[in-house]
Amino acid sequence: MKKAVIIPDSFKGTLSSETICSIMAENIKKYFPKCHIVSIPVADGGEGSVNCFLTALGGEKIYETVKNPYFEDMRTFYGLINDGKTAVIEMASCAGLPLVEDRKNPAKTTTYGVGQLILAACKKGCKKIIVGLGGSSTNDGGTGAAAALGVKFYNKYEEEFVPVGATLKEIFKIDMTERSAAIDYIEIVTMCDIDNPMYGANGAAYIFGPQKGADSFMVAELDEGLRNLCDVIKRDIGIDLKDIPGGGAAGAMGAGMIAFFNSKIQMGIETVLDNVNFDEVINDADMIFTGEGKIDSQSLRGKVVIGVAKRAKKKNVAVTVVVGGAEDGIDEVYDMGVTSIFTINRLPQDFSTSRIHSKENMSATMDNILRLIKSYKNK
Amino acid sequence: MKKAVIIPDSFKGTLSSETICSIMAENIKKYFPKCHIVSIPVADGGEGSVNCFLTALGGEKIYETVKNPYFEDMRTFYGLINDGKTAVIEMASCAGLPLVEDRKNPAKTTTYGVGQLILAACKKGCKKIIVGLGGSSTNDGGTGAAAALGVKFYNKYEEEFVPVGATLKEIFKIDMTERSAAIDYIEIVTMCDIDNPMYGANGAAYIFGPQKGADSFMVAELDEGLRNLCDVIKRDIGIDLKDIPGGGAAGAMGAGMIAFFNSKIQMGIETVLDNVNFDEVINDADMIFTGEGKIDSQSLRGKVVIGVAKRAKKKNVAVTVVVGGAEDGIDEVYDMGVTSIFTINRLPQDFSTSRIHSKENMSATMDNILRLIKSYKNK
Repeated sequence: MKKAVIIPDSFKGTLSSETICSIMAENIKKYFPKCHIVSIPVADGGEGSVNCFLTALGGEKIYETVKNPYFEDMRTFYGLINDGKTAVIEMASCAGLPLVEDRKNPAKTTTYGVGQLILAACKKGCKKIIVGLGGSSTNDGGTGAAAALGVKFYNKYEEEFVPVGATLKEIFKIDMTERSAAIDYIEIVTMCDIDNPMYGANGAAYIFGPQKGADSFMVAELDEGLRNLCDVIKRDIGIDLKDIPGGGAAGAMGAGMIAFFNSKIQMGIETVLDNVNFDEVINDADMIFTGEGKIDSQSLRGKVVIGVAKRAKKKNVAVTVVVGGAEDGIDEVYDMGVTSIFTINRLPQDFSTSRIHSKENMSATMDNILRLIKSYKNK
Repeated sequence: MKKAVIIPDSFKGTLSSETICSIMAENIKKYFPKCHIVSIPVADGGEGSVNCFLTALGGEKIYETVKNPYFEDMRTFYGLINDGKTAVIEMASCAGLPLVEDRKNPAKTTTYGVGQLILAACKKGCKKIIVGLGGSSTNDGGTGAAAALGVKFYNKYEEEFVPVGATLKEIFKIDMTERSAAIDYIEIVTMCDIDNPMYGANGAAYIFGPQKGADSFMVAELDEGLRNLCDVIKRDIGIDLKDIPGGGAAGAMGAGMIAFFNSKIQMGIETVLDNVNFDEVINDADMIFTGEGKIDSQSLRGKVVIGVAKRAKKKNVAVTVVVGGAEDGIDEVYDMGVTSIFTINRLPQDFSTSRIHSKENMSATMDNILRLIKSYKNK
């Protein structure tokens, strides 16, 4: 094995994709010390996404002071990759749920800081900005971020205000004319792995509101606000966001990214694969190692393993998948480019027990896969 | 892959070694339809051992009427392999615990039928008899079997009797002079995978008596009886069985096999490997597949996987091990000839749940191992 590419998703709740990368790399080096290893920990847009890109591509962290979810100043960061041409912003860094631990309230929290980070990256001279959604504490439809870039929101008394979840329903007019010119001509990509719509029964408020602290009354209020925002955007900006998949991501930040910043929404894995030039990276690879917490029929919907496998198949590179669990009924994945799937459960234990041993189990599983591979490579 | 050898132990309580053989073979055929597959389901001496040998080597079943554990006539069988030169007898077939389900009593049960089967095999012209211990209902030290072959037991009143557990302590004299000549010059091998001594705290009565139905009073009585038997054997036959490992197997049948039939005790796997000419079988094999329920530090003590691996190492054939569980601290097994170890737990489930899915899990695991192997074989 001369070249191996490691590109795992995180195992939710047990192993970060960076940890998996280092366990996999360690084991490969044990058996193939001269192997060139490329590690690409996959970011899904949530917390840790900037670090993932920096690990995979190198770059730097730029620190900025921006507003936290309660409009208070905080110090946070974004990443610069591709010689400063591309910025990576994770929404969670200034609008994340962990930042409001004991005062969760999606009716009051803002994405203003995210807009400030976008503006800072624009002014830094970036040509492309990747904004990772996920792990947000907000439900403001991205209006806070828009306000930070000069988009004006007015109520019916023609008073300008910065909307939050509770006041979305008061938006009467949106004015884009004073939006910062710094953002013009910059490509903005939104990473988002869910496809919920902006509002309604499967929308941002009903599906994600409760975990952000909303009770059923607040959920209804937030949903009504998003519906109003959608209507005003349609009228004033001319975009109908109602049925856009992913519009409901991160408190409808997904929708706001489209309306206010002309962003396109993309699966996290596709963003990563594009930005690391995956097709070139695997050209001379002998083996790709990937994985995710669980592979099931949902995985077919473009999650990490399938995203990787599809591209690997075109180049005829074998894809070994290591997972926490493999459901039945996934035979399609083999047609899509997966070579083989191994699970890390070294003992019959339920998840509450096995999760504690994830690192050791991942390492033992990789160790044995590599022992098998080596026995063939030596022949 | 031109030739594969499949030689798994059973997974206790979930999969017989024969079932595992067929699942493994099926999967190999899927990816390597022209592969020559040799299946050797491993017998441990207990129930099913005769079938295992017949599956591996071909042969025939010979039916006989012999005594059951309560001296009642029953119809049972032994196996003939190697063109009738070798007989395989499983003790459980006429002295097994399932035969006395609702009247378990190791003070009263006999191995008489086992002796009758041995005699029948001798008369059939066999040169070698393999007797598998395991799963017995008895604690007679093999005296019943000995009696069936003409060994005489006397009490202190010089009355001849056939001892059972409760009357072992009455044995005053043993006379071997009338032992059937049919057994002379026949090699008798006893398969036995435990190393408990004949009597004492780790002996047959204390360790295995309770599961055969003995209460603590009976256990003490049985142990005393075995101690007496040991003393009389030492005096009258001249063999000191006290510290022989495995003497306590199957109600001290292990000890009786040595004293009365001049048998050697051998690990089940070694008996199998010898009788199937394993060293020759693997000469031109590309891969050996083996497995056991759980691999742990105990496995180093000569269980199936290690027995197989040691011989494979000498021939430099790769050994892929598929197990229900793999404990930590087993790195030694790789030095002993194991190539790699995969577990069948496709989901994080405890044994009570996963055991139901053992077949599917075994099949899915083999499927993925073979997919990986194929991806290398195709390069």
